[in-house]
Amino acid sequence: MSSAEFIFEETVRIYDTDAQGIAHYASYYRFFTNTIEKYMREKAGIPYPNVNDELWFVMVESHATYKKPVKLGDRLTILLSPKALSKKVIRFDFKILKEGQVTTEGYVIQVAINPKVWKSVEIPEDILKKIVSV
Amino acid sequence: MSSAEFIFEETVRIYDTDAQGIAHYASYYRFFTNTIEKYMREKAGIPYPNVNDELWFVMVESHATYKKPVKLGDRLTILLSPKALSKKVIRFDFKILKEGQVTTEGYVIQVAINPKVWKSVEIPEDILKKIVSV
Amino acid sequence: MSSAEFIFEETVRIYDTDAQGIAHYASYYRFFTNTIEKYMREKAGIPYPNVNDELWFVMVESHATYKKPVKLGDRLTILLSPKALSKKVIRFDFKILKEGQVTTEGYVIQVAINPKVWKSVEIPEDILKKIVSV
Amino acid sequence: MSSAEFIFEETVRIYDTDAQGIAHYASYYRFFTNTIEKYMREKAGIPYPNVNDELWFVMVESHATYKKPVKLGDRLTILLSPKALSKKVIRFDFKILKEGQVTTEGYVIQVAINPKVWKSVEIPEDILKKIVSV
Repeated sequence: MSSAEFIFEETVRIYDTDAQGIAHYASYYRFFTNTIEKYMREKAGIPYPNVNDELWFVMVESHATYKKPVKLGDRLTILLSPKALSKKVIRFDFKILKEGQVTTEGYVIQVAINPKVWKSVEIPEDILKKIVSV
Repeated sequence: MSSAEFIFEETVRIYDTDAQGIAHYASYYRFFTNTIEKYMREKAGIPYPNVNDELWFVMVESHATYKKPVKLGDRLTILLSPKALSKKVIRFDFKILKEGQVTTEGYVIQVAINPKVWKSVEIPEDILKKIVSV
Repeated sequence: MSSAEFIFEETVRIYDTDAQGIAHYASYYRFFTNTIEKYMREKAGIPYPNVNDELWFVMVESHATYKKPVKLGDRLTILLSPKALSKKVIRFDFKILKEGQVTTEGYVIQVAINPKVWKSVEIPEDILKKIVSV
Repeated sequence: MSSAEFIFEETVRIYDTDAQGIAHYASYYRFFTNTIEKYMREKAGIPYPNVNDELWFVMVESHATYKKPVKLGDRLTILLSPKALSKKVIRFDFKILKEGQVTTEGYVIQVAINPKVWKSVEIPEDILKKIVSV
């Protein structure tokens, strides 16, 4: 299935930083989540990660590699590529750039579940299409 | 109603700090929550803040004053005094000390609700007693 | 001294919520910080909270009252009113609205310091003007 | 180089959870950090992650796989295995268990730097020994 690239702009805020004077490593997962959330709202047009009473996206894996630190006030550009790994599983790849240079790369993988029974389910085709082929 | 004092030890961790080299102001609310949680578990013997399906403690007010900054690795002593403001409302007062000196003071106020109807309820007397007169 | 009102739009994201199904009480302080940061960047035109090597804004007090809960995906409107309490101290008042109704009110108070000596200082007049009379 | 296993007990607190009623995926990185911090303080006897003015541990990679969700109030057992990948780089592997069952696995990789020049450095042998062969 095809993938689309989405661009999100973010600022490094004081609560993202730590006493090393750089963004804390776990803050990048907030940048990732912010990017998916905006993509889902503005491009795919679906609530995220709780789509409805029978469809939630639950995290199964997260990963990040930190190449260059970012600092308080830095303006970041976050590139998102969503991809369906199966009818149930979506992978979101990220690249974070500062002034054109890659500072961080990462991904998160989410599985669709029915929260009523907490079991994996196939993502309805119309929803999947909105996510991976905008 | 009477109140009891409870002591909790905490370390300032890297994610508590920010690029000012001190604990971020919102991290203190995590110190407060940690202290109540431990008090409830070890002293009062009740789950917190979701006691059961018909009793949750929901936040209605939070406050902190920051007198002296604390830094990465600092060992903090947090004093907690719970107090019933009514049969439905509890106030938790905090003092945070570092090496015997008060660095921070604050409080949070929580109201008991029934989450099924999201309305305030009286705290059952046996539970209230466990909280305010340990 | 005069004050200006600034409006910021925010979405309640999954990491803002907790197992009560509502925004966690400390998440509102992130909403407050986001609002000041955007105000400082877009309206006042100064880095925040670390303006330069000789001027930082350090938190001395924070407060919030929670009137109505907000939930995952809710769109919030945050009103900010900055006010100089003295030549060294600024108070930021907040109102958070959802669909026209006030859900949360609060404030934070910050003092200007010189981080090299960690002492309070007067805010240079040109900077103070940018903050309180945009 | 040899590795040692360290055990840390943690409770899932309200701020660790989200509106899916489970621990938020990024909260596990806080569990990881808490475990390393306690290991460094109690076993290795060194400040973490800022050891001294010439030695900091900076994050270069983080990873987690989520097998089973954990909930508010769950008591977790976190197993830590530190390992030197080189004289400059340490990998910390984690397993999180709930009632004997693995819920989460992950790792973080950190490089030693001299913060004055922000360049990687070899970890002094006495410090490296304390970390990987306790």
